[in-house]
Amino acid sequence: MLQQLFTPSVQHALDLIGIFVFAISGALLAVRKNFDIFGIAVLAEVTALGGGLIRDLVIGAVPPAAFTDLGYFLTPLLAALLVFFLHPEVERIQTGVNVFDAAGLGLFCVSGTTKAYEYGLGLTASAALGLATAVGGGVLRDVLANEVPSLLRWDRDLYAVPAMAGAALVVLCIRYDTLTPLTSGLAAVAAFVLRLLAMHFHWRAPRAWNRRSSAVEAEEVEGGHRHKATA
Amino acid sequence: MLQQLFTPSVQHALDLIGIFVFAISGALLAVRKNFDIFGIAVLAEVTALGGGLIRDLVIGAVPPAAFTDLGYFLTPLLAALLVFFLHPEVERIQTGVNVFDAAGLGLFCVSGTTKAYEYGLGLTASAALGLATAVGGGVLRDVLANEVPSLLRWDRDLYAVPAMAGAALVVLCIRYDTLTPLTSGLAAVAAFVLRLLAMHFHWRAPRAWNRRSSAVEAEEVEGGHRHKATA
Amino acid sequence: MLQQLFTPSVQHALDLIGIFVFAISGALLAVRKNFDIFGIAVLAEVTALGGGLIRDLVIGAVPPAAFTDLGYFLTPLLAALLVFFLHPEVERIQTGVNVFDAAGLGLFCVSGTTKAYEYGLGLTASAALGLATAVGGGVLRDVLANEVPSLLRWDRDLYAVPAMAGAALVVLCIRYDTLTPLTSGLAAVAAFVLRLLAMHFHWRAPRAWNRRSSAVEAEEVEGGHRHKATA
Repeated sequence: MLQQLFTPSVQHALDLIGIFVFAISGALLAVRKNFDIFGIAVLAEVTALGGGLIRDLVIGAVPPAAFTDLGYFLTPLLAALLVFFLHPEVERIQTGVNVFDAAGLGLFCVSGTTKAYEYGLGLTASAALGLATAVGGGVLRDVLANEVPSLLRWDRDLYAVPAMAGAALVVLCIRYDTLTPLTSGLAAVAAFVLRLLAMHFHWRAPRAWNRRSSAVEAEEVEGGHRHKATA
Repeated sequence: MLQQLFTPSVQHALDLIGIFVFAISGALLAVRKNFDIFGIAVLAEVTALGGGLIRDLVIGAVPPAAFTDLGYFLTPLLAALLVFFLHPEVERIQTGVNVFDAAGLGLFCVSGTTKAYEYGLGLTASAALGLATAVGGGVLRDVLANEVPSLLRWDRDLYAVPAMAGAALVVLCIRYDTLTPLTSGLAAVAAFVLRLLAMHFHWRAPRAWNRRSSAVEAEEVEGGHRHKATA
Repeated sequence: MLQQLFTPSVQHALDLIGIFVFAISGALLAVRKNFDIFGIAVLAEVTALGGGLIRDLVIGAVPPAAFTDLGYFLTPLLAALLVFFLHPEVERIQTGVNVFDAAGLGLFCVSGTTKAYEYGLGLTASAALGLATAVGGGVLRDVLANEVPSLLRWDRDLYAVPAMAGAALVVLCIRYDTLTPLTSGLAAVAAFVLRLLAMHFHWRAPRAWNRRSSAVEAEEVEGGHRHKATA
């Protein structure tokens, strides 16, 4: 009975907003990598729909929503066009883009977890797949652009943790039978706010227990003067 | 009733030709990257079968054709062997390879679109998946070789557009109920010729509206003397 | 009737061991790439479960085992924690890790081939998918870490061949109706020993017939003094 968390039209509108903001982030990276208009469109589509595509393949919901809902397909193209013509303006409002991206993260981790549970996955697996839905598009974006996924880099503000928190809240609500439009909305807001705080305070996660960290960092100085290892 | 566009044996022969020429392009990249014989075989298989594999997973046609038809599996190995022993000769006829690759592009965008429609996707989604079938193998090839997919790069001749045109023609034929072996053959030929023209005249797609293009290009000069931004 | 090769608990324990050792290799690469704790966990999960995930998507076994068995999901997290706190010790026993990784390779190529055959694939396709199960996680690991997959590189000891041998032995046993816990265990051991021998004697596969190899290698010297091509 989870299917009607929101009225279908509200859920659909929220999905489209999440898709749009993720598409903007993909299109902006494409512009920075100097891709052409088709590269911008492809990266916008992949970033926006990739996470949901992975989720749908894993739970066996084929054909995936990305290929059955025309709005899902056209929204990233709109984002790509906007960025193509207005990218200096869009980059100037980078903070605004990041806020929207945080909103997309919150929406996708909640909807991904919910859909995975509806298709019969366990609670832990649903949360894991909700996380994959939220971050998968960004990972595909970075892989296609031949960059280390920013999800994995230590020098980026926390991104996975807010999505994990949102997915965990949804799973707790399911466990205690209190998943309603209100509580799942609150879970999305929690993930959203947590991501905003992580960006504002530059929260980062620890790297491996750094007994040899100075040696590791020295190795990283490429082709140049090595730092003195003070280990 | 789309299934019998061509006689099965004609369709199968066309598929094998497309697989073979895509495998050649994968094997050649592997040689350039200095991979060993197994790396050459893997890249040939992935390039040749990757697009169809993505398509089959998306439409739920499992196990995918790549794993049910022995000819599909063995053809790339044959291409890998040829390139392994004869790569200087194959590279010398690079233009020939490009012509065959264009033929593969035409064949795959038509067969991909048709198969997606047979499995119940809408017209737009079928065209999108036909495009993904045609270009997906090449994208996987470049990702595995740790390069920016040439599909996305602005400094390569148009590649996606001919496949889009072929897929769009198929969709138009379906829409107006005129999809026959003849018309779908013509769609493949149109994509093929368009790609040949793009290569011959070095047609390229525009990059993002370049208000700041000089700044972007200056940033791209790696580790060196920056161009004066004349913005 | 292949399903009961081993008692379920023995099979499950073998799977978990394979998952654990692959996760260690993913976590170690993440530490070397200077990823944070979440990057380490993600790379451990992807390396350990990626091969089986690809296999399950291809044969249509959804949701994949990685999402239905909590032990499969938690084991890589344990490996990630171990590496996070103890990575100097783990790296010091790199040889030990390589031995375990070889064991994982042997186990996965056998279980992957067997499961693919159970789901109705032909013998060649089953062997190919068994190979993909065994090496797929490592390829995803390297792609996410933005490196050329070590599977493809000529300067690494043979990795695919032992898995191919194990998969081929399983397929031969199926063909001649002699697949028992004993014979499939022997196939896993054969792949394991072959990989150990390849590491010990630094067996490598040939690169493309090297009529132009000196030219190729000269091109590889990056940004520096080019070797004299003696071609």
